[in-house]
Amino acid sequence: MKVVLAKNLGFCFGVKRAINIAEEFKNTPTLGPLIHNKKEIDRLQEDFGVGVIDSAELALEESSVIVRTHGIERDKRELLKKRGVEIIDATCPYVTKPQKICEDMSKEGYQIVIFGDIEHPEVKGVMSYSKSTPIVIGSVEELESLEFDQKVALVSQTTKKISNFLKIADHLVKRCSEVRVFNTICNATAQNQDAARELAKESDVVIVVGGKNSSNTKQLLTICKEYTDAYLVEDESEIEKDWFRGKGSCGISAGASTPDWIISKIVKKIEGYQF
Amino acid sequence: MKVVLAKNLGFCFGVKRAINIAEEFKNTPTLGPLIHNKKEIDRLQEDFGVGVIDSAELALEESSVIVRTHGIERDKRELLKKRGVEIIDATCPYVTKPQKICEDMSKEGYQIVIFGDIEHPEVKGVMSYSKSTPIVIGSVEELESLEFDQKVALVSQTTKKISNFLKIADHLVKRCSEVRVFNTICNATAQNQDAARELAKESDVVIVVGGKNSSNTKQLLTICKEYTDAYLVEDESEIEKDWFRGKGSCGISAGASTPDWIISKIVKKIEGYQF
Repeated sequence: MKVVLAKNLGFCFGVKRAINIAEEFKNTPTLGPLIHNKKEIDRLQEDFGVGVIDSAELALEESSVIVRTHGIERDKRELLKKRGVEIIDATCPYVTKPQKICEDMSKEGYQIVIFGDIEHPEVKGVMSYSKSTPIVIGSVEELESLEFDQKVALVSQTTKKISNFLKIADHLVKRCSEVRVFNTICNATAQNQDAARELAKESDVVIVVGGKNSSNTKQLLTICKEYTDAYLVEDESEIEKDWFRGKGSCGISAGASTPDWIISKIVKKIEGYQF
Repeated sequence: MKVVLAKNLGFCFGVKRAINIAEEFKNTPTLGPLIHNKKEIDRLQEDFGVGVIDSAELALEESSVIVRTHGIERDKRELLKKRGVEIIDATCPYVTKPQKICEDMSKEGYQIVIFGDIEHPEVKGVMSYSKSTPIVIGSVEELESLEFDQKVALVSQTTKKISNFLKIADHLVKRCSEVRVFNTICNATAQNQDAARELAKESDVVIVVGGKNSSNTKQLLTICKEYTDAYLVEDESEIEKDWFRGKGSCGISAGASTPDWIISKIVKKIEGYQF
């Protein structure tokens, strides 16, 4: 079976950086999973003794803790500091940016509007930096039922689609006298999405590799499904031979937290198929 | 001939205010025409002795001068002040707002982007308040050839269409890390446009009354022409009976600087037509 990789796929800058930090500070636990990829988390545990702690309360018993790529809520960070727990910060710099914007803009009196999933750890962290209660918009459809102040500042979860972000910005510009729009969508996300789209157009089937709780991986799957058959898998064990029967070529895309070693195993398995 | 008036038409807040000022400060000249309506300017000259001076140099010879609704360039205002000429300010408050924004934002280091006609007196005035050279965008088509800084502040000429303003905002959000969008489009403009659109849909012909150099009047004509036959006239003398032959109903719209007395004369003339 012929396999073609997307021009951009897999690890982004922030994930690479976080894994380097975790490998350097071996035997230090992370507060919540470092990235949204269980296999890579398992590897860090086995090879570097980097475990996962589920709550800030448990982290208080440690001498040091690694903050995940998605960041941490402000009050938790302050609690850890106060109790003398050393913080090793693997927050993606692209996530630190909207946190800082929320803090500064809310101080200046702007109402904070965040485009993102309110349950996602990145968004929870960003929200916590606003001095006033922020409005979190999960989808464009929610806009009509919301009311806004005259002066608002808009940021986005780093992994959202720019086209929806622009729809939200347009809505606010029509209703508010000043809108400060901070485009905090991560470039790597956009590049992986563009590459997945091009690949899907030319493939009979696409395998998207990544964590099932990964926001950017789910978006890749949605994009690929617009053009062809597409499946989301976490590793090669989930691959089914039947998906490729009668297909000419298979494309591979992968989320920003998917390591190369998982992608390689999948490619090898699919290339081995003969019909 | 049946005549129907648009639900919103004619004088806006800023124009009414300016005419009140001119009538109060009789015998004081204006620097450039107070509003874009020659007939009303003539009336102010005849009834109140309010003439028009064409240049700031000539205004220096006066003891006081009225600043037009569209505002004045910053350096001219300062020259007049310095030379002791009293300034009676009839600048529309909705025009003062983008002037102030340009001044403040350029001081804070934002690149200023203005959506407007570079030759229009309002835009010339707004531009002059920027500490750095602003980018003036006349149409959405110009966007692709322009380069922008990472931090920009966007304002609009008060009489522009919101849909085009949003297209410019979207373009900037995609390219810049921060865009401060100030919706400085005047509400009266939007209301007159909406009413003209509704009227044009239900009319066999529409007469748009207003100055031929008036930005908002020209936009009304463009909108009406999308739906029906439409003509722009400055007064009743330009009306031609042939336009109404075979038509069932005639709609009337008017620019923000068109006085009621001109509209009344036109209505009377058209109502008098019999076929």
